[in-house]
Formats: sequence, C-alpha cells, structure tokens
Amino acid sequence: MTHTLYSPFDMHIHFRQNEMLRAIAPLSGYSFSGGVIMPNCIPPIDSAELLADYTEQVNNALGALDFTPFMTLFFRNYSEKELAEIKDSIIGIKLYPAGATTNSDQGVKEISKAEHTLAMMEEMGIRLLVHGETHGFVMDREKEFLSIYDYLAKKFPRLHIVMEHITTKDAVEFLDKYDNVTATVTLQHLLITLDDVIGGLMNPHLFCKPIAKRYEDRDSLLDAALNAHPKLCFGSDSAPHPIDKKESCGCAAGVFTAPIALQVLTQLFEKHNSLPNLQKFVSDNAVNIYNLTPSPKKVELCKKPFLVPEKYHTVVPMYAGQTLEWSIESVQ
Amino acid sequence: MTHTLYSPFDMHIHFRQNEMLRAIAPLSGYSFSGGVIMPNCIPPIDSAELLADYTEQVNNALGALDFTPFMTLFFRNYSEKELAEIKDSIIGIKLYPAGATTNSDQGVKEISKAEHTLAMMEEMGIRLLVHGETHGFVMDREKEFLSIYDYLAKKFPRLHIVMEHITTKDAVEFLDKYDNVTATVTLQHLLITLDDVIGGLMNPHLFCKPIAKRYEDRDSLLDAALNAHPKLCFGSDSAPHPIDKKESCGCAAGVFTAPIALQVLTQLFEKHNSLPNLQKFVSDNAVNIYNLTPSPKKVELCKKPFLVPEKYHTVVPMYAGQTLEWSIESVQ
Repeated sequence: MTHTLYSPFDMHIHFRQNEMLRAIAPLSGYSFSGGVIMPNCIPPIDSAELLADYTEQVNNALGALDFTPFMTLFFRNYSEKELAEIKDSIIGIKLYPAGATTNSDQGVKEISKAEHTLAMMEEMGIRLLVHGETHGFVMDREKEFLSIYDYLAKKFPRLHIVMEHITTKDAVEFLDKYDNVTATVTLQHLLITLDDVIGGLMNPHLFCKPIAKRYEDRDSLLDAALNAHPKLCFGSDSAPHPIDKKESCGCAAGVFTAPIALQVLTQLFEKHNSLPNLQKFVSDNAVNIYNLTPSPKKVELCKKPFLVPEKYHTVVPMYAGQTLEWSIESVQ
Repeated sequence: MTHTLYSPFDMHIHFRQNEMLRAIAPLSGYSFSGGVIMPNCIPPIDSAELLADYTEQVNNALGALDFTPFMTLFFRNYSEKELAEIKDSIIGIKLYPAGATTNSDQGVKEISKAEHTLAMMEEMGIRLLVHGETHGFVMDREKEFLSIYDYLAKKFPRLHIVMEHITTKDAVEFLDKYDNVTATVTLQHLLITLDDVIGGLMNPHLFCKPIAKRYEDRDSLLDAALNAHPKLCFGSDSAPHPIDKKESCGCAAGVFTAPIALQVLTQLFEKHNSLPNLQKFVSDNAVNIYNLTPSPKKVELCKKPFLVPEKYHTVVPMYAGQTLEWSIESVQ
C-alpha cells in the first residue's frame, strides 16, 4: 500500500543556527517542498542584514535540496522603510510575547506598543505570525491570549494573522470567527495530551510550548486536521535541542518531529480513514492561504515498518526507537 | 532570631531500601522525632515477615538517632488473622490505586474488591492511608477521587481515612465533610504550582505525584497549613530518586525535601506571620490525630543563611544550591 503526497509544506519550523542548522535542515529539505523558518535565533532575526545572512546560512545548509525556506522576521517596532526593504524577502513577521518560549526574551511586552508597526504591516500586506500565549497559568495561556487575537483581528481586519501551533478546542473554534485569522497545528498536538508529558513518568522529549492540553483539546485539533479544516495548515514546530538540554534539570521546550512527520501523519490519517484529506492538510491549504506555488516534489509513502532512529545528530526525535507503520519510499 | 519546634513529625516519608535507605533515613532521623514510612518498596511491604524485615532495616539505618518510624503495610486483601498479627506494628495500611505512582503496580484495581478488608480494618481500628488519585487526566485525578473518599467515609464511618498529600482546594474543602477523614500535605504543594514544573523550563526535580496544581489550589493548601487546620498534618512525601532517574527521559516522580523541610517551613510560616501555628502543623496536630506520644526532641532553628547542598548522596533536594533564610542551629 502506498500513498503519495505532492509538495508537502511545513508551515512552522525551527532550523536553528550553525552546526544544528547544518545537521537538521536537510532532514526537512529531503521530505518537504518548503517551510516557514522561525526567527528566534541568537540574536533574533530582526533586521535586513541579519535576515540576509540567516537566509544564506539556511540555503547553504539545504544545499541542492528542493526546499524553499519561507523566511520570517522577529517582531519589533520597525520603520516603514525597514518594512518596505524586507517585505519581499519574508512570508511574515513572527510576534513572540517576551519570554514565552525559546529565545524570545526580546519579544513584545505590551501589544499596544506594537500597533503602529501592525498598522503598517496591514497596509503593506505583511502577514503576522503569532506565538499566542499570555504569561498566565501554563494551562490557560493560549485561551487567555484569544482575547488578544480577538482585539487584533478586529482592529486590523486586513492583516492576515496566523495563530501558530494552536493547542486548544477554543482556538479551533476561534478560527471561524474572523476571515483574516488562520492557524497552524503541530504533529504532537494531534496526538498527545498533558498525560503523555507528566501523567506517567515525565517525558522531556514531549515537553513543548504551548504545552499539550486536555483530551477534548487534542480531539478537537485532530478532528479539524482530519477534516482538512480549510484555515488550518500543518506546521510541525519541530524544535531541535541537543539531548543534554532535554534530559536535564531545566529542560528546554520543543519536540523534534521534522524527519518523521509525514510518516506519522500518514499513519494517523489512515487510522482515521481520512487519507484523502492529508494532501490538503500538508499542502493545498497552505498553497491557498499563503499563495504558495507548489513544487514538483512528490513524496511516496509506503506501508512498511520504519524504525525511528534513537537520535538524529544530537537530537532525540518523537517516537525515538519505536517503529512506525509507514516509511518514505521515495522522493521525486 | 530563633524558633524552637518540639517533636516534629513527618507523617509521610519514603525511606526506600538498601543503600538509599542508609543514606537518607538519617537525614529525617536528625531533625524529626518520627514519621510515617511508606511501604511501596520492591517487593511491596505486605506481610508480617516483610514488615518485620523492613522495620529492622529502617531501625538499623536510623542507628542511635531519636526517631520513631511509624511503619505501614501495603494494602491488599488481608485475612483477619494477618491483620490481627500486624495491627500493633503499624500506624496504618496504605492503599495505592494500581500504577498511580512509584512502585504501585500491585495496588488496588477496584475499590469494591477491597471492602472486606476495609470492614475488618474499621472493626480493628486500623487506619487507612490513601494515595487518592484516579487514572483520569493528570490535573483531575485527585478531584475525581474525592467521590471514592466520599463513598469510603460514609460506608466505613469509624475507619480513620487519611487523604495523603492533598493538592487541591477541593480536597481541603472535603476535609470538613467527614469526622473520620484527615489529610497530610507536602512542603512542595504549599509552595509550587504546575507553572514551576512545566511553565518555564521543565523542572524534573519538582515533578511529583500528585502533580502540583493551580494557584488557587496552592493558596488553599497554604492557607490551611498556616492556620494549622486541625485535620491537616505535615507529611513531606519526601521521595528520593538518584539524579540519573530524575534528569532523564522517563523521569521518576518525587521531590526530595526531608533535610530542608523544617527550615523552609519556618521561613514560609514566618513570611506569612504564622510562626506560632507551625508547632501545630508539624507536631501537635499529628499527636492529636494519630494519638502519638511526643518525644523530648527539640529542634532549634535560627535565622541565618543555609546553603542547600547540590546533592545529598545521589539525590538532588528541592532548593539545591539555593540559600534558605533559616538553619537548624541545634537538635536536643
């Protein structure tokens, strides 16, 4: 049994820098046609110079692989001149509330102070990508942030706002509220709940931000993905950390899924008799929402066991050491 | 500034076995007059023979220290003869739902099948200590178990039931519902919430079962402790795991607090202007509830900095490497 995916896109990835970038970018580059590369580097990618430099590093890491990195800028208050200069080099600007996740200390402290830049982005057609969490109690952060999405979507009705890596039923329901709001969802949030992170033994490799929530949240996200909700795209949020930063006191947030995402998604959609919708979830929806041009890349998956490596480079992937039902047979 | 505690008791401790037992029992033995020693060993302490053997091991580990180990038996269905034999050697029988925490695989699967033994315990005046969590969603397990407490408290009105290590506002409120129900609470649940475990970086050393909950839960527990709620005793649930079992994939549940508990409690009660109530919380309530005889032990705490060691033996304690405001000055 085989299943073919055409031009799959990963609309939310962390490629990191230097040695990690060189080690992991090719893993996405092999099986995906393109993806949104997040800008939470050290320092954050927040100028034309840093963007040009990081884009070059990313392209060098990808080498000859057929993969389009859709670059992003780290949100700060930009001048009109700055925005005009970088506009065509990016797919959007990523807003992090200060301190919400990995390398986000220089993020936004007060949304009201961001409005001048947001207004210019709306005028210039620059997309806003958002890590939508408040600084509240860990289980409530996304739900609390919905009021900020609400405010922004109303105030800037022509600004395309992407709720990144949504994790709650409330966020899924929010999608239907405004035409200018879409979302991405990760692999792990279709599969796990907080029980998988801390319900048995504690599993640092499933610790991410936003944290996995309740069963009703997971089920709502899965239902939206399986039904190819037209405003929802796959974005893995694949976030590599070396094993010593995960299995330690002060474990960093992030689940590494890039090299296994398509195999697991195929298994998941098949299990739920939804394979015909997978193409929309991993490609067509993104093409429509972000006006992308699909690449000729064709990924053929085959129902034969795939033993997930214990590590890629220094990074432990989700399902490390476990056997998946589907493999990537070929990429053309 | 000094503060004296008379005969402090820790009504819930894990002493473990072998090398760990020998390393950590003296830490409790130094500053406490006695404590309830939990029976989730390998194998579980569930016979007169195992109990006698474990009691001897515990006493050997304590050596000449003035500390009374109140031994417990692991709940299974016992015969009347067995119960009669061990009755005077234990402070109670500890019921674990199967799989709820460390070494509890042989716990109870269905409460209805335990009722015959519970009825005999009620008749014979043997206390029931309970790890009160269902197998539900990690944040709901204690709340869901309240209906089981409710059932048991009503069905066996003369059975003294101890809700061990309560973590929720609901459990605090439940205390007032039945005369035959009391509770213990740990140090960490007076101090932390889920945010401290997974809200920033993930902290395996604060991962325990039941998991720390919400702010309103923490505040309710703290309020009950500071006001020396007469049905609430200090029980640290101090649970040592070697560092390699904590800082790893599949981190074991347990916070190690025995050697720092009295210092931190003094600091906490002082901060909230409740120092006069600490004696009740760490001793007098236990004396009343469990009919204990206080020992002549006198622990003098002094307000001078105490740098918590990074490790005791192979175990990382809570507040490792941090400085507490209070030290133990002398024990007489």
